[in-house]
Amino acid sequence: MTKNPNDVVAQSGGPTAVINSSACGVIQQAHKSGKIGCVLGATNGILGVLSEDLFDISAEKPETIEALKRTPAAAIGSCRYKLKSLEESRADFERILDVFRAHDIRYFFYAGGNDSMDTADKVNKLAADSGYELVCIGIPKTVDNDLAFTDHCPGYGSVAKYVATCAMEAGRDTEALYTHDTCTILEVMGRNAGWIAAATGLAARCPEDAPHLIYVPESPFYFDKLVSDVKQVLREFGRVFIVAGEGLKNEKGEYITADKGAFGTDAFGHLQLGGVADMLKAVIEDQVGIKARCNRLGTNQRSAMHFASLTDVNEAYMCGQMAVKAALGGENGKMVTLVRQDKPKYRCTTGLAELRDVANGEKKLPPEYINDSGNHITDAMRDYVRPLVRGEAPITIGDDGLPVFMRFERKPLEKKLPKYM
Amino acid sequence: MTKNPNDVVAQSGGPTAVINSSACGVIQQAHKSGKIGCVLGATNGILGVLSEDLFDISAEKPETIEALKRTPAAAIGSCRYKLKSLEESRADFERILDVFRAHDIRYFFYAGGNDSMDTADKVNKLAADSGYELVCIGIPKTVDNDLAFTDHCPGYGSVAKYVATCAMEAGRDTEALYTHDTCTILEVMGRNAGWIAAATGLAARCPEDAPHLIYVPESPFYFDKLVSDVKQVLREFGRVFIVAGEGLKNEKGEYITADKGAFGTDAFGHLQLGGVADMLKAVIEDQVGIKARCNRLGTNQRSAMHFASLTDVNEAYMCGQMAVKAALGGENGKMVTLVRQDKPKYRCTTGLAELRDVANGEKKLPPEYINDSGNHITDAMRDYVRPLVRGEAPITIGDDGLPVFMRFERKPLEKKLPKYM
Repeated sequence: MTKNPNDVVAQSGGPTAVINSSACGVIQQAHKSGKIGCVLGATNGILGVLSEDLFDISAEKPETIEALKRTPAAAIGSCRYKLKSLEESRADFERILDVFRAHDIRYFFYAGGNDSMDTADKVNKLAADSGYELVCIGIPKTVDNDLAFTDHCPGYGSVAKYVATCAMEAGRDTEALYTHDTCTILEVMGRNAGWIAAATGLAARCPEDAPHLIYVPESPFYFDKLVSDVKQVLREFGRVFIVAGEGLKNEKGEYITADKGAFGTDAFGHLQLGGVADMLKAVIEDQVGIKARCNRLGTNQRSAMHFASLTDVNEAYMCGQMAVKAALGGENGKMVTLVRQDKPKYRCTTGLAELRDVANGEKKLPPEYINDSGNHITDAMRDYVRPLVRGEAPITIGDDGLPVFMRFERKPLEKKLPKYM
Repeated sequence: MTKNPNDVVAQSGGPTAVINSSACGVIQQAHKSGKIGCVLGATNGILGVLSEDLFDISAEKPETIEALKRTPAAAIGSCRYKLKSLEESRADFERILDVFRAHDIRYFFYAGGNDSMDTADKVNKLAADSGYELVCIGIPKTVDNDLAFTDHCPGYGSVAKYVATCAMEAGRDTEALYTHDTCTILEVMGRNAGWIAAATGLAARCPEDAPHLIYVPESPFYFDKLVSDVKQVLREFGRVFIVAGEGLKNEKGEYITADKGAFGTDAFGHLQLGGVADMLKAVIEDQVGIKARCNRLGTNQRSAMHFASLTDVNEAYMCGQMAVKAALGGENGKMVTLVRQDKPKYRCTTGLAELRDVANGEKKLPPEYINDSGNHITDAMRDYVRPLVRGEAPITIGDDGLPVFMRFERKPLEKKLPKYM
């Protein structure tokens, strides 16, 4: 241990192609600063802190740390453990501070979505109340792009690039065979926000290009409208390519898949969705009388490092760096935000927002990004997403023709506290 | 029209990332030879011939033709129309010859699978019987890799590279969250042959890498074996990543999804499959008590130009070239094959096989490529597939950060015959 206090970096929620780039930014900036002792990794997010499962990232090889930029998912380990209010989860919060104290951790960098920002905020408040000097800085991360106070979220640009490309490619497949397979439905992620589905609209450079129809959770979904939309596109092009966000809702705001009854809830209480494309397929085959196919990219869309956006990778790294700079510059209780400048051309810098504000916000697709028919996007959406998908992130390819990803050696930190729970 | 006779190039069956590369090889070689008049495209395969829907590819811009190498699916248009025996489909076969005669077509290059080779063979026989000079050469094409007499099929290397990468990436996602999402199932294509599923085994460079379990149609599938396999992997790694071929069968050779009753048949009489991963998920959640996720890549796996194998693209092009060279060299009624030389290093040349032999063959995974437990691959399979996925095919990326694909202008040939059917 050096004399400087340590930091801990942790990852939370659904992985992305670039959350490791943010971690890389934190680690390399912390090392560069000379003001932080060891960079510690919390295995599986806040769970790793609670269980004192920490490892010394500073002891990893520099090339391993550098390779974080080219590795998808969450190399430190993520979790979906949600802490409740300070009152309800008091023991958890106390334990977190105990672990921080035991390892002289004075900086907590947490990459995640709303729930993670909420956790970081509460840890920060308790530390202040307890007189423990701690700096908590959040790093935005979510493929869903639904965090408020930031122009966009690291992770979104890469999923946008990938799903748009998938729509374009599978669209050509549908086009090639349209004497036979007249309908393809691509189901993409997006529980409450249609940002991912909307991004596929970029693939439609002209009206005959896929996707012809895009449905997002922000627009109420009607099956009879679907049927008439499909018939209209078939009349025009003889084929139809549909993108459906997984969280489509009816006019009452209920998930259209909810009455299937087969879906549980995750640890955050979110409905676990699936099967939207299957439902659309069944209705189209029955009521339009054509054959439909479903592609469900699932977790492949958020881990597609092999075609990640270079812009996204670079911005994610910058968020990590800026988190450390902000912490060392005297900021606390903030999340790094991305600030867009569009003129004369796209440029992205960072800002800061209060953790507590981010925790309570949710950014949906604004109405002006959805067309009047509620079945495609507008040019405003295209202008928003286009700069985010530019550039192809470099990856390492092995002699076997496949990507090479890093794994940490994970030298565990000696535990100093009794076992918790 | 020049004095030289024309050729027609047509595409059939499910598209791939590289069937257009083969078309490019045919077109460019035909032009280069100086012995072929116009290269005509048959819109949607043999259907385009029957309906006299032909267009003049030689009139397309050279850069459009060159861009075929970087465009997935079937740019000329594909179909799933199956001609029966000469006796049963006599009118169709006569019509094909009528169209060939009307447009002075003396060369027929058909890229497809078994069924297409069968069609080409029968057209060829009828031409010979009728005294019409015609040369028919087949070009192998199928992501399923199930054609006999060829070491591998153009299209397979690219789908292999992509699905293995997807297994690797989604595997990291499962690994990152394995306190929560303990099981992921990736469903891949392969109706009767497990070549695609088996290719994902390349992603497992060490035992903890995904996929941990691979199930192929060649090994009888038992649900109780699945449950014990999953429990075994969970004990060892705390997570499990499964790849399932869509055509898994029980010990009686029946599709395990067949009793769901929801699947029709395609125009070739093949069972249309789907839902294998959903079935596995249901059984695992019920009998192992963990949460499982399904990713179904669908048509995205066979159209993933953005990460296609350069080896595959080059070999597909070579098959197209060699088809023309063979035709002009006096061969007839043959399909171009790929011939592997492994020592001192991988090298691929071409050979020829009789169309009628190819039409009746089907190449499944040999037993020595599947491990004794029937749940993963062997080193022999790794050695087979590794060279096929090497290299990344170049693509064109637009200013919007997405791939750019070509479309033909499709200058239609004037119809000379009465409408058919």
